Amino acid sequence: MSEKLIKKPVTGMKDILPQEMQIRDYVEQTVLRVYGRYGFEHIETPVPEHIENLCSDQGGENEKLIFKIMKRGEKLDIKGAESENDLADSGLRYDLTLPLSRYFANNNPSLAMPFKALQTGNVFRADRPQKGRFRQFKQCDIDIIGDPTDLAEIELVNATTALLSELGFKGFRVRINDRRILKAMGRYAGFDEESLPEIFIILDKMDKIGIGGVEKELKDAGYDADGVDKYLALFKEGRDDTEGIRKLADTLGSNVEESVISGLIEIFTAVNETKSADFRLSFDPALVRGMGYYTGTIFEIEMEEFKSSVAGGGRYDGMIGRFTGQEVPACGFSIGFERIITILMDKGFKVPDAAERTAFLIEKGTSPERLASIMREAQELRDKGETVLVARMAKNKKFQKENLEKSGYTSFREFYRN
Amino acid sequence: MSEKLIKKPVTGMKDILPQEMQIRDYVEQTVLRVYGRYGFEHIETPVPEHIENLCSDQGGENEKLIFKIMKRGEKLDIKGAESENDLADSGLRYDLTLPLSRYFANNNPSLAMPFKALQTGNVFRADRPQKGRFRQFKQCDIDIIGDPTDLAEIELVNATTALLSELGFKGFRVRINDRRILKAMGRYAGFDEESLPEIFIILDKMDKIGIGGVEKELKDAGYDADGVDKYLALFKEGRDDTEGIRKLADTLGSNVEESVISGLIEIFTAVNETKSADFRLSFDPALVRGMGYYTGTIFEIEMEEFKSSVAGGGRYDGMIGRFTGQEVPACGFSIGFERIITILMDKGFKVPDAAERTAFLIEKGTSPERLASIMREAQELRDKGETVLVARMAKNKKFQKENLEKSGYTSFREFYRN
Repeated sequence: MSEKLIKKPVTGMKDILPQEMQIRDYVEQTVLRVYGRYGFEHIETPVPEHIENLCSDQGGENEKLIFKIMKRGEKLDIKGAESENDLADSGLRYDLTLPLSRYFANNNPSLAMPFKALQTGNVFRADRPQKGRFRQFKQCDIDIIGDPTDLAEIELVNATTALLSELGFKGFRVRINDRRILKAMGRYAGFDEESLPEIFIILDKMDKIGIGGVEKELKDAGYDADGVDKYLALFKEGRDDTEGIRKLADTLGSNVEESVISGLIEIFTAVNETKSADFRLSFDPALVRGMGYYTGTIFEIEMEEFKSSVAGGGRYDGMIGRFTGQEVPACGFSIGFERIITILMDKGFKVPDAAERTAFLIEKGTSPERLASIMREAQELRDKGETVLVARMAKNKKFQKENLEKSGYTSFREFYRN
Repeated sequence: MSEKLIKKPVTGMKDILPQEMQIRDYVEQTVLRVYGRYGFEHIETPVPEHIENLCSDQGGENEKLIFKIMKRGEKLDIKGAESENDLADSGLRYDLTLPLSRYFANNNPSLAMPFKALQTGNVFRADRPQKGRFRQFKQCDIDIIGDPTDLAEIELVNATTALLSELGFKGFRVRINDRRILKAMGRYAGFDEESLPEIFIILDKMDKIGIGGVEKELKDAGYDADGVDKYLALFKEGRDDTEGIRKLADTLGSNVEESVISGLIEIFTAVNETKSADFRLSFDPALVRGMGYYTGTIFEIEMEEFKSSVAGGGRYDGMIGRFTGQEVPACGFSIGFERIITILMDKGFKVPDAAERTAFLIEKGTSPERLASIMREAQELRDKGETVLVARMAKNKKFQKENLEKSGYTSFREFYRN
């Protein structure tokens, strides 16, 4: 009783208060409902993953971000340990893509194909803590495994835009590109295959530094000036629709396969003809997306009001094979769950059709019989689906009611002893 | 691409398949809806907790169960480490009660009082793995903080039985006792205050070894035979209702405070008059419950069909004070979420009012225009709330359909190229 414990959450993580939680629950339930309609199956993987799987990425960039879990009992040899990984046998997952790949490899005989997976779960990254960025945060991923055709892309775009629309967002833009077009543009300009990753890193800054900035950085990095000019001319052609795609394809000629172009056009046709949400699908040859594992189409959804993207994804046909040993096509979207919550909180979002909230405040010393009769009344309202708090009246009733109002209670009834 | 990764989840944890997840989501949403009506506020705490808080319990029994998270960067000194806790700065929470206490201490100025908290979250215990018992499992806790009166107990029993009823359970029994009655019975029989914990451990086996077994163990442990006989006679009195409580109180006389008895009777009166579910509230003077931190009423809910309890809890007025420095009354229930899921899965539970599931299977090579028209049709059904999977037809269509049937698809439409 005497020792005092630490009240704050661990560094970089947060307690979620009831008001925020109401919105989070609403968004999560909307995610389950909307994606459910499109046949996505909700699944869950354990929070800890094998340390070997977590540390398997090329370059080891992610390894620094991992919260590692110590071995236990006899397996933990503190004296004999040379390095961190002698002490750890698992770690907290830092994304939902690696666990999905493992899950698919482990369970695929029990899964209907194509497998449409929906995951909602916390991931953990030991990043430097900063405002609005936490070390535990919720991700929401949808993935279609086993469909090599662009039907996967169409379904992902339609479902995700339907979700955003259901959450009240309008007038957003879905940017789409294809890694194979990005590469073809590089080839067309005469760049080496090996220099493409560096070129894409610079190109990715287009939003921030503009085409002039990209030109300067490419030339400063030593790329041939004529090549850079030829390359950047491709981005100036303008139209971001199927006409724009056709025009670019004509310019690129044999540098790009026709199936890539026709696939992209099929996505445009199907999405524009079937979309239920108010948004614009927009071809953006400068869209890069950082992740090295994408192999085909890539996406990003952004809203005018907010600078950064709220969802993104693409096709990653190589990843699942790392577990199964054979290549399996896959395409996925990751929704910025925390970003969406922040936007909704900032604009004072109220959960639609939330139950009426009434508080019954009962003075202490009320007889058991009277208490029972008050509670029967509360029960009747609850049976109708209303929220009824039955609580002892506090000494400072005014303060109690003010706090309850903050929690959404709109009506009060007071019951006195006599 | 060549290295193969580990497919299985980490030892003792499991991947959750879509069929189970449908039931889990349904139960969780029912938990949120039903407890919500009673004014419980959903909250969330981070999965990791400070190692100091996790290891603060008396006796250190829990410490062995903790998954400890290693320090990172400069703070990790492998060479200089003498003990586990030199290497760890946090660990995975092993229950939801400790995080709730910390949460309340950290956030109480923002919380309406009394604070009715609902938590649903995974907890982690490095137990020896065994069938049906996992190292990551979901807990669901409801707690009322700041209400010293038995209104808290009444609300917890009413809400939890309403939940079980909503999940389709009937004819269960809510056993209730009070730690202060347990102690009074020990005093009445002439036992020392210090021997009570040991006596309660033996008494707790009543269900398994019967009153004869308890008698033998107490006498073998060296307790005075007359005292043991006097003690056990108290359990033979029979009636498990308010009459039984009164009769026991008369026997115990000044060993028990009248307020304890009248409180228990008030709970009986209010619950029996207001309950909406089909269950029996039953006074059980032999109910002990293991947790050392209970200070007043204790509960356990069991169903005839299943031996062990599906929920339990009690009043723990001392716990929160370890964080705040001042005593705060609290009373809570923990629902056996995993146990309920297992029971529902075993009895072949189907989620009520689940959406109709239709699969559109499209042959490869269908024209973009036709694809768009098929997808428009799918969209119309989805807009009505139905689940429609749009997928490429597999080469082995029969196998594809069989797997989809297992996932709950009841109707199929096939679309061919021509």
